[in-house]
Amino acid sequence: VGLIDRFHAGDPRALARLASLIERGDPVGEAALDLLYELTGQAHIVGITGPPGAGKSTLINALIGAIRETGRRVGVIAVDPSSPFGGGAVLGDRIRMMERHGDDGVFVRSMASRGRFGGLAPTTAGLVHLLDAAGFPVVIVETIGAGQDGVDIGALAQTVVVLQVPGLGDDIQTIKSGLLEVGDILVVNKADRLGADEVMRSLRQMSNRERHGWSIPLVRTVARSEEGVVELRCQIDAHLDYLRASGELANRQRTAARAEVLSRLRSDLERRLTLNPTVLAGLDHAIGEVAARRLAPGGVVRDLLVRLERIE
Amino acid sequence: VGLIDRFHAGDPRALARLASLIERGDPVGEAALDLLYELTGQAHIVGITGPPGAGKSTLINALIGAIRETGRRVGVIAVDPSSPFGGGAVLGDRIRMMERHGDDGVFVRSMASRGRFGGLAPTTAGLVHLLDAAGFPVVIVETIGAGQDGVDIGALAQTVVVLQVPGLGDDIQTIKSGLLEVGDILVVNKADRLGADEVMRSLRQMSNRERHGWSIPLVRTVARSEEGVVELRCQIDAHLDYLRASGELANRQRTAARAEVLSRLRSDLERRLTLNPTVLAGLDHAIGEVAARRLAPGGVVRDLLVRLERIE
Repeated sequence: VGLIDRFHAGDPRALARLASLIERGDPVGEAALDLLYELTGQAHIVGITGPPGAGKSTLINALIGAIRETGRRVGVIAVDPSSPFGGGAVLGDRIRMMERHGDDGVFVRSMASRGRFGGLAPTTAGLVHLLDAAGFPVVIVETIGAGQDGVDIGALAQTVVVLQVPGLGDDIQTIKSGLLEVGDILVVNKADRLGADEVMRSLRQMSNRERHGWSIPLVRTVARSEEGVVELRCQIDAHLDYLRASGELANRQRTAARAEVLSRLRSDLERRLTLNPTVLAGLDHAIGEVAARRLAPGGVVRDLLVRLERIE
Repeated sequence: VGLIDRFHAGDPRALARLASLIERGDPVGEAALDLLYELTGQAHIVGITGPPGAGKSTLINALIGAIRETGRRVGVIAVDPSSPFGGGAVLGDRIRMMERHGDDGVFVRSMASRGRFGGLAPTTAGLVHLLDAAGFPVVIVETIGAGQDGVDIGALAQTVVVLQVPGLGDDIQTIKSGLLEVGDILVVNKADRLGADEVMRSLRQMSNRERHGWSIPLVRTVARSEEGVVELRCQIDAHLDYLRASGELANRQRTAARAEVLSRLRSDLERRLTLNPTVLAGLDHAIGEVAARRLAPGGVVRDLLVRLERIE
C-alpha cells in the first residue's frame, strides 16, 4: 500500500496513521506489522516505571531533551491504566510531555492500557515494533508500575528504569514486591525533597546491586530542574553496551518474543472462544445458573470446555 | 471427605486447611468448592482498595473491630501484588491486621496475587466463596488499586470502598483513572493530615456523587485512632440495604458470576494450550524465529492456531 511506501520515505503522518491503526487492532495495522517486522530489532527499548506521583512523565520529558542532545531520535509510548468505563487517558501529565512535540526527532504516543493480561495493552509491542522499524534508536515505554506491570515491562524492555520518590508514606515495602527486581537502573526522583536520603538508603539495602555481571546503578534526579538526567542517560546507554558485550541482549530479545507470542496466542484464543455462537449461548445460560447458585463455576467451565471441543 | 464434615461443623482448622488448598489450586480444594458453592450468596462482599500508603490494612483492622461490635463475624482476604521472581507477600502491613487473629469470629488470609488476568489472583473468588459458605456475613477483600485492579474488584465485590489520602503528590488525577468510578463509598483516610480538606474537595468534584439512585458518601477517617470507622461501617451496611431494596444486588451477583466464569475459561484454555506437546514444540521454534526477526509474531500465532485446530 501507499501508506507503507510513505512510511519508508519517513513521512511522519504515515507513521502516526500506522500507529493509530495498530493501536486500534485494525487488520491493516496488523498486515503492516507483518511487513515491517524484519526491520525491527535495532532500537534500544527502555522501560520507565514507578508508582503514580513518581514524576515519570516529567523525567521522560527531560530525558528526551538529553537524548536529543546526542543527535538521536526518540520514540515514547506512554501506557495509562484506563478507566473501566470511560476509557480515557489521564491528560495533565501527558501534556507536559507533549511540549517536545514540535521536534521531528520525537514521536510521542499516549495509549490507554486496554490489556487484560497484565499492565500493558496487547498492542504496546506492536507500537514498539513500528517505532523500531521507523528507525528510532531509542524507544521509551512508560508504565505505571504496580503488581503485574513489572513483569510485563520486564519482558518487553531491554533496560528497565524503576523510579521511586520520597514521601509516598511508609509503604516503601511495596516497591519490593516485583518492580525492584526487574529494575536495571534505580532512580530516586524528586531528590530535593525531604526523605530522599532515606529512600536512597532503603533502595541500596533492598536491591541486589548486581545481576549477571551488571551492577545496578542508583541515580538521584530532580526532573523539573533536569538534575541527574544526563547521568541517567549515560547509565541507560551503558546498560545497552553491557547487554551487547555480555550477550544478554539476545536473551532479552528472546524473552520479549516469547512474551509477545504467548500473549497474542492467549488473546486470539479468547476471541475465538467468545465469538463462537454455540459457546456464547451456553455461556449466558451458565452464568445465570452460577449467579443463582444452582451450578458451581468450576463445573460450568468444565462443561463449556467439553462443548467447545465437540464443535472444533 | 472428613474435611468437609469438619468444615460444616465449624472447625476453624478445617476452614484454614480448605483455604490453603483452594489458594494453591489443589484439585481437592476445587472439589470442595463444587460441593460448597450452593451455600454461598449470603455474605456481603466488601472490596477495600486504594493506592499503596493509603493505610488500607490499618483501616481494615479498625473496621474489623467495629463490625465485631455488632456481633457479626468477618472474613478478610488481603491480595498482594506478588514478585515475579520471589513470589513472597509483603509482610509488615499484614502483621498489624493479624492482631485481631486471636478472635474466633475473624478469619484473615493474606494471599500473593498470582493472577495474570488483572489484579486479583484467580483463586480469590474461590476463597470468597469458602468464607461465604462458612457463614461469615461480611467478607472484606483488600487490593492495591491500580490499573486493572479496579475493574476486578468492581466485578467481585458488592460494595467497593475506595481510599484516598492527603500527601500522595499532585497526582490526584490518577485516582480518576478507573478506581473512583467503581467506588460505592469514598474514604479520605489519614484525615488529620495536612491537605485532607483539599482531597475531600477534589473527590467531591470528581466523583459522580450519585449512581443508580445511590448517592456515594464521602467519609473521613483516621484509622489509627478509629475516627470515622463506625461511620464507615454504617455506610457499608447502608449500601447493602440499598443493593437489596433496589434489586441491584442481583445484578452485581450476575456480574461477579460472569467475571469468574470467563476468567476461569481463559485460564483453563491457556493451560490446555501450554500442555499440548505438539503446540509446545512448535512454539519454541517459532519464538526463536521471531526473536531472530525471520518471522513476524502475527504470522507465527496464526500458524500455531491452525496447528492447534488440526490436533483437536
